[in-house]
Amino acid sequence: MTELTAKTNPKVKHFVRLRSDASYRREHSCFVLEGLRLCLDAYLSGISIAESYVTQKALNMFGDELSDMLKDSKAYLITDEISDKMSDTQSPQGVFCIFKMLDKDSMRNKIEVNGKYIAAESIQNPSNLGAIARTAEALGISGLIVGGGCDIYNPKAQRAAMGSLLRLPVITADNLIDYLLSLKEQGFRVFGTVPDREAKAVTSVDFNAPCVSVIGNEANGLSDEILKICTDRITVPMAGRAESLNASTAAAIIMWEMVR
Amino acid sequence: MTELTAKTNPKVKHFVRLRSDASYRREHSCFVLEGLRLCLDAYLSGISIAESYVTQKALNMFGDELSDMLKDSKAYLITDEISDKMSDTQSPQGVFCIFKMLDKDSMRNKIEVNGKYIAAESIQNPSNLGAIARTAEALGISGLIVGGGCDIYNPKAQRAAMGSLLRLPVITADNLIDYLLSLKEQGFRVFGTVPDREAKAVTSVDFNAPCVSVIGNEANGLSDEILKICTDRITVPMAGRAESLNASTAAAIIMWEMVR
Repeated sequence: MTELTAKTNPKVKHFVRLRSDASYRREHSCFVLEGLRLCLDAYLSGISIAESYVTQKALNMFGDELSDMLKDSKAYLITDEISDKMSDTQSPQGVFCIFKMLDKDSMRNKIEVNGKYIAAESIQNPSNLGAIARTAEALGISGLIVGGGCDIYNPKAQRAAMGSLLRLPVITADNLIDYLLSLKEQGFRVFGTVPDREAKAVTSVDFNAPCVSVIGNEANGLSDEILKICTDRITVPMAGRAESLNASTAAAIIMWEMVR
Repeated sequence: MTELTAKTNPKVKHFVRLRSDASYRREHSCFVLEGLRLCLDAYLSGISIAESYVTQKALNMFGDELSDMLKDSKAYLITDEISDKMSDTQSPQGVFCIFKMLDKDSMRNKIEVNGKYIAAESIQNPSNLGAIARTAEALGISGLIVGGGCDIYNPKAQRAAMGSLLRLPVITADNLIDYLLSLKEQGFRVFGTVPDREAKAVTSVDFNAPCVSVIGNEANGLSDEILKICTDRITVPMAGRAESLNASTAAAIIMWEMVR
C-alpha cells in the first residue's frame, strides 16, 4: 500500500475538492464517501471503486472487513492528520473512498411504466435529499427523480441516505418540467404537493395508477412552472400551522400514502 | 446596552457552557438560542428571557424587530469575534439569547385524558428529537413525552424543532417506565413501535382511544423494560430492508396514522 504523509499531497487536495465541489465531481465523474459502513456498503453493492484511503488505526480495527475493498482499488495508507483533513466529520473513522459515478443512462434508471415515483424540485439541504431517498427505498417507492438543487453525490446527502441513493433507481433530470411532461405523455399522474388547505387531501387521492409526487424546495415550495403542469395539487392536512412540516417529513407522509 | 469586547469575558464562557453542557443548563435552569427567528419566536411565545447578545451588524439589520426583546432582557452588544465564539453555526446571524427553562410542572404539561401522545425513549440525535416535536405540532399530536437521551434544550434539537419544543406540551419523564405505567392506569393504550414484521401493522391499529406511541433509540430501538409494559407492539410495514426508516421518519408515519 502506498503511504501518504504530506497533507499537501495533490491526492489529498483532489479528495477534498471531490468532497466539497459538485462541479469538480461532475468534471471527474467521481464522488467520495467516508466511514466504514458507507464505503463498504457502496463497494458491496457493486459501485465501481477507484481509490481507498485508510489510517493505520482503521486498518488495525477493520482490516479483515476492508481487505477485499482495498485489493480492488488503488489503496493508500494515510496519517491521522491527512484523515482529519479529508474528513467532514468531527471524529473520522479513517476510511475514505473515491467511487465512479453511476451511469446516468443505465437500465437501472429506466422508468417502470406502472411505477410510483417521488420527485424533488430544487431541494437544497443535502440531509433532506438523503432522507427522502432513504424513506423511498424503505417504503418501496419505484424511484427518485431529482430536478436541480443539491446533487445526489453530496457527501451529506449520501450519509443521510445510508446507501439508498446508490441502490434506489435515481434519475437526475436536467430539465424537470420536460421530464415530468414526458411522464404525463406515458400516462402518469403528476401530483404537486403544496402546503395549502384548499388542495386535495392526500387521504383522498387515488395513487393506484402510475404516478409521481413532486416535493418542492424547502423555502419556496414548488415553482409556478412545475405547478402548472401538475395534474393535481395535493396536501397533507395539518392541525398545526401551515408549512410547518419539514420537506423530508412531508415527503415521507406522501410516500407512505402512495404505498399504504 | 453594555458592550462586551473580550472573548474571555465570563459572560461569553457562561453562554458557551449553557450551549454545550446539558448538566450546566439544568444547574442554572437556563438554555440558549441563536438566530433571529428562533430567539424572536421564543420571546414572542412568552418564554421568560434573561439576556440578549447582539452584534452591531445584527442591530443594523434587525434593530426594529429586536427592540422589544432587547428592552425586556439584559442586553449586550458583542463583537463579531465573540459572536463567532458563541455560535455553533458556520455563519452566525449575531443574535443570541439566554432563556429560563419552562416550569416542568406547569399546567401546560398536564396530560389530556383523551389525548394522543408520542413518547421518545433515549433518542440520541438532537435533530431527531427536534424533528419529532416539529411533526407532532404540525399534525396536532397532544404532546411529547421525553424519557432519557438528548434533552429538549439542546440547541440542535431546538433548531430542528423550529420552536415546536417550546410550544408543544412536552413532558420530561425522569422515569419513563413509571410514567407510562401511570398513563396505563389512566386508561391509555401504550404502543411500542418496533421494526418487526410480526408486530401489528400501524394501518390496523385503533388509535381512537387515549394512547401513547413510544419510539425507541436510533441504534437499539426500545428497551426490553419498555416493551414489557406496552399494551401492543406496532410497526410500519416496509417493502425495503427492515430497520431502514430513520427514527424521526418512523415517528412521523406513526403520528400521521394516529391522527389520520
